Amino acid sequence: MPQGRPTTVPDDGLTTAQRRSLPLLMVHTGDGKGKSTAAFGVALRAWNQGWDVGVFQFVKSAKWRIGEQTVLERLGELHEQTGEGGPVTWHKMGAGWSWSRKEGSTEDHAADAAEGWAEVKRAIAEERHDLYVLDEFTYPMEWGWVDVDDVVSTLRDRPGRQYVVVTGRRAHPALVEAADLVTEMTKVKHQMDRGQKGQRGIEW
Amino acid sequence: MPQGRPTTVPDDGLTTAQRRSLPLLMVHTGDGKGKSTAAFGVALRAWNQGWDVGVFQFVKSAKWRIGEQTVLERLGELHEQTGEGGPVTWHKMGAGWSWSRKEGSTEDHAADAAEGWAEVKRAIAEERHDLYVLDEFTYPMEWGWVDVDDVVSTLRDRPGRQYVVVTGRRAHPALVEAADLVTEMTKVKHQMDRGQKGQRGIEW
Repeated sequence: MPQGRPTTVPDDGLTTAQRRSLPLLMVHTGDGKGKSTAAFGVALRAWNQGWDVGVFQFVKSAKWRIGEQTVLERLGELHEQTGEGGPVTWHKMGAGWSWSRKEGSTEDHAADAAEGWAEVKRAIAEERHDLYVLDEFTYPMEWGWVDVDDVVSTLRDRPGRQYVVVTGRRAHPALVEAADLVTEMTKVKHQMDRGQKGQRGIEW
Repeated sequence: MPQGRPTTVPDDGLTTAQRRSLPLLMVHTGDGKGKSTAAFGVALRAWNQGWDVGVFQFVKSAKWRIGEQTVLERLGELHEQTGEGGPVTWHKMGAGWSWSRKEGSTEDHAADAAEGWAEVKRAIAEERHDLYVLDEFTYPMEWGWVDVDDVVSTLRDRPGRQYVVVTGRRAHPALVEAADLVTEMTKVKHQMDRGQKGQRGIEW
């Protein structure tokens, strides 16, 4: 997409340069494909700028995201080996969050999600990453596993220069309201409609 | 997204396994962000599966896509060095397509686009890649720089097992009709609306 021109200049007392460097809260929502995929595309670009990327995967599956995880972790290794790009940390619910002692077997998804969010909060307070990918985080919000007001105020009032992308269907209106950039991915047509199932390499 | 279940089983004489392995023609369109970003996310996963990825970038800019190009070309190098993932070829209009003798200075965008498409056709006929990213290709189609019927029949009737992703706004109805998976990215909210300009690392 061409670099756009703002249609209005806000009365916020900031210069264009200051405004340009405001960190963004982004939301990818809707029922279509590409919400997470585009978030990992953003992570690619961030890595290339040398940003510290933290992924928090709020889904439980050995299979989903394995392609993205492998590649982003490989890029994180490259950074360690050669200094290219930035560091990458990938935290996954279900396999046990990396800071958590317990492993895998828990079936208390609500507690897992709350624990994941508590770690995101700590990371944000410490300004640990430049980009946070909160993958499929709209669901714990929807299901009441995390407190929506707490999430929205924490993300909106985060310190420093930290970018956040939240993905998932049915983003909460309060999150949409707080976000700077909200994109809805809408399914126009899907091969599942004609009976074709998900495909390795494309769906995961 | 969870692996979905088809809502209907088509009467096409194929088994589920055969149907699952049908190569897809995908379109990312709409006025929102994430069309190309999600396509490069698909390319990430394809690389991780060891697929041969060919990117054809139908835009002219030194700046756009530079993050994705750097990372995907780096992954292509990794493949050459270590055998990880798959090969990546990145062709760019404007800098002169890689198979073209002329360099940069041409201003005949229509001829450049037609030349790019001719090369895509050759590649598809030779089954050169497993995944084609035809980035911003809806515009040459819209502007009459390439023949829509030729594009649609070539993509629809491509031989073998070749996946294609086409990105850009206002995808031609005939392309949408031919596609297996069409996602529309819709802008719900954008920081440019409040006067914030594009940002390095996020927009490019």
